[in-house]
Amino acid sequence: MENSALFIKMVLSNWQTQNGRLSALLDKLSDEELAKETAPGRNTGVYLLGHMAAVHDGMLTILGFGDRLYPELDEVFIHNPDRSGLPKPSTPYLRDCWKKVSETLEQHINATQPDEWFKRHNSVSEEDFLKEPHRNKLNIIINRTNHLSTHLGQLNYLSPRS
Amino acid sequence: MENSALFIKMVLSNWQTQNGRLSALLDKLSDEELAKETAPGRNTGVYLLGHMAAVHDGMLTILGFGDRLYPELDEVFIHNPDRSGLPKPSTPYLRDCWKKVSETLEQHINATQPDEWFKRHNSVSEEDFLKEPHRNKLNIIINRTNHLSTHLGQLNYLSPRS
Repeated sequence: MENSALFIKMVLSNWQTQNGRLSALLDKLSDEELAKETAPGRNTGVYLLGHMAAVHDGMLTILGFGDRLYPELDEVFIHNPDRSGLPKPSTPYLRDCWKKVSETLEQHINATQPDEWFKRHNSVSEEDFLKEPHRNKLNIIINRTNHLSTHLGQLNYLSPRS
Repeated sequence: MENSALFIKMVLSNWQTQNGRLSALLDKLSDEELAKETAPGRNTGVYLLGHMAAVHDGMLTILGFGDRLYPELDEVFIHNPDRSGLPKPSTPYLRDCWKKVSETLEQHINATQPDEWFKRHNSVSEEDFLKEPHRNKLNIIINRTNHLSTHLGQLNYLSPRS
């Protein structure tokens, strides 16, 4: 296999594994479990669900995949903390956002040509990209996989102890 | 920049960022804070510190970098859970293990030639590697960065709430 194709497969395979783990965990947790804090005084499951949906929705524009589906989530789930007092959408609605965002991202990811992954993403200027060519679209996937893993570790604390 | 060099830089740069975050967090947390559970009934900071040191120590052999420094950590921190009743090394000793393992890994990583990263690691057979060439040494770095991120999210819960 050619190196670029191999490398893309490595990155996407880790992204898909971690996304799959998060989706499986969300499917397993009830709305009541998601309403709880992941640890005393820490983010609730609902907040982290909204946060993940918002951050991944933002990847649609950063990666040049098109318009965002739920830009309104940012105010509550990125720009403000859990106990902001802002009204939150219902948990079933947020579950739906997560699913739709995941499906949409997956479709675009699968349709992306190998060369495209090594192009500049929309959060880095053309000037900076010339100096830092590793700040490409595939690097966003690596970075967001780690972001997801961080919150997956926290959301795991909502599962009953074995 | 040549493509392989670029991939390697992307993966190692994310690995170093996440390792740096964990090391900075460990430096910030006192031994008393590390002794606490990251959430009620969940792993303590000390257990996760030992777990991370053990898993990263194991990378030395998986990546063909040489003999492990602290193979005895596996029994307490990988093969058994936190409340196994097995005696744990002291926290200062575990901090030292983490630092030495991190430094040793970093030296080997920096000395690794580009082509070497796309070769088979020692946890996959030659036969399987022929069918799954993405199971190379660089993939171990991607995978372990995600593992680290998962536990970093949990260890963050030992920091005082802001």
